[in-house]
Amino acid sequence: MEVFSTIVDVRHALREERRRGRSVAFVPTMGYLHEGHVALMREGRKRANILVVSIFVNPTQFGPSEDLDAYPRDLESDLAKCRGVGAHVVFPPTPAEMYQGTPRTTVTVEGLTQGLCGRSRPTHFQGVTTVVTKLFNIVQPDVAIFGEKDYQQLAVLRQMARDLNTPVEIIGAPTVREPDGLAMSSRNAYLSPDQRQQATVLIRSLRQVHALVAQGEQDVGVLDREVRGLLDQEPDARLDYLSFVHPDTLEPVDTVSAPTRVAMAVFLGPTRLIDNILVTPGAP
Amino acid sequence: MEVFSTIVDVRHALREERRRGRSVAFVPTMGYLHEGHVALMREGRKRANILVVSIFVNPTQFGPSEDLDAYPRDLESDLAKCRGVGAHVVFPPTPAEMYQGTPRTTVTVEGLTQGLCGRSRPTHFQGVTTVVTKLFNIVQPDVAIFGEKDYQQLAVLRQMARDLNTPVEIIGAPTVREPDGLAMSSRNAYLSPDQRQQATVLIRSLRQVHALVAQGEQDVGVLDREVRGLLDQEPDARLDYLSFVHPDTLEPVDTVSAPTRVAMAVFLGPTRLIDNILVTPGAP
Repeated sequence: MEVFSTIVDVRHALREERRRGRSVAFVPTMGYLHEGHVALMREGRKRANILVVSIFVNPTQFGPSEDLDAYPRDLESDLAKCRGVGAHVVFPPTPAEMYQGTPRTTVTVEGLTQGLCGRSRPTHFQGVTTVVTKLFNIVQPDVAIFGEKDYQQLAVLRQMARDLNTPVEIIGAPTVREPDGLAMSSRNAYLSPDQRQQATVLIRSLRQVHALVAQGEQDVGVLDREVRGLLDQEPDARLDYLSFVHPDTLEPVDTVSAPTRVAMAVFLGPTRLIDNILVTPGAP
Repeated sequence: MEVFSTIVDVRHALREERRRGRSVAFVPTMGYLHEGHVALMREGRKRANILVVSIFVNPTQFGPSEDLDAYPRDLESDLAKCRGVGAHVVFPPTPAEMYQGTPRTTVTVEGLTQGLCGRSRPTHFQGVTTVVTKLFNIVQPDVAIFGEKDYQQLAVLRQMARDLNTPVEIIGAPTVREPDGLAMSSRNAYLSPDQRQQATVLIRSLRQVHALVAQGEQDVGVLDREVRGLLDQEPDARLDYLSFVHPDTLEPVDTVSAPTRVAMAVFLGPTRLIDNILVTPGAP
């Protein structure tokens, strides 16, 4: 495994690999890697000859009052996990390496970025789409793997790649969960033991929606009240949003009459967690 | 020479060429090719093994009151010119091929796009940067050649490529002129014989500025008055803008104390023409 912190070096190494006819899979991360990232990396190993992992806490996707400075970092542990999975190249650039001079260019996806997390994080997705475009241009992968846990991000990046004819296949990989169902997230490290217990309210809510839809409930108003009832039992939990949306366009639906993505964000104290599942009427 | 109208076909052909180790030069055009385009294509031939030319009148870079429908088209003549220069691949997609589904993604360069042509064409450069990003992703060239005649476009695309780490070398090629100095442009075809004669006022103005700067004049106010005097002598000419700007940032200057790009747009009747030159104090 090789570690390159500069754009010139990572490009040079990958040009060599491509010249030898090797395909490239790419997993962009913000580091502090957990089992969810490991699953993305394993998927990447399966889909191409060379696995490239970037580790970059991208400042432009954090809002002014968000947790950029506090975001957990542990490069040594991250490199060990990349090595364990058999990554070939790790790219951990500095912000100064990624944003040289005075950048003036942004990539924007309208529509899909306005609801869900876009409401409380209005500049977040422009930061994501711009940095992912940059990373794609640096790594030039054949496939890139993103977690379904960040479902809106996945849908936005799919739309971006379709609209810009990006020569990269975007793969979504299933959410990896703790034994009690909590979705793996680097931000879980922020939780106190008590908040950690309450945090299962996200997956319990989503599973309750799933069960009710399987029983025939289609009214989003009814499902929403059910979830709010569960959240009211957790003293530190505050709902940011619960949304029922079309899986591709992310447009809200009133009735679960077709496959629907149910997504939610919940604050546990100051920590904001997200999760989502697909529900399909009539499916067990 | 091969002509491919679909993205799938052009990608397939170029993948083959790249697999054989061939480098690719790209000249994006809106067709109605003239000697200026021929010069860009010749430059492309020199810089890579394979020359790809796109011919696409991009609707998203025209404003609602602009000349999209009237823009001159002559594919047969264009293909003959491409063949004459030795182009290998010509890509003339339809708008439906380039903009599939409901596109929601745009690439925006702030700052450089606001002045000069951006003032009278506020959505133009977003259309250009978005379609050029798409074309780059489809063709994946090593180098791309753009004319200095569209100087602001060249500066904007250089900034975009720098900011997004686009893996393409952007080359600017000198403006090609008619014997009387008028810059070659597909829009010259709109001019009546009388307007065609008056149209030399652009290059006469720029050469007058060049001569005055060579004589030591640095005051932009004085140079501006001089040009307006020349324009007043042409009954069909109306100045859109005359700007003195930094060659990279396109920020306006008051004094020509360093190399300065002088750019102008002039209406001749309904037809808007642009031209520009570099002036350097103390240079002959």
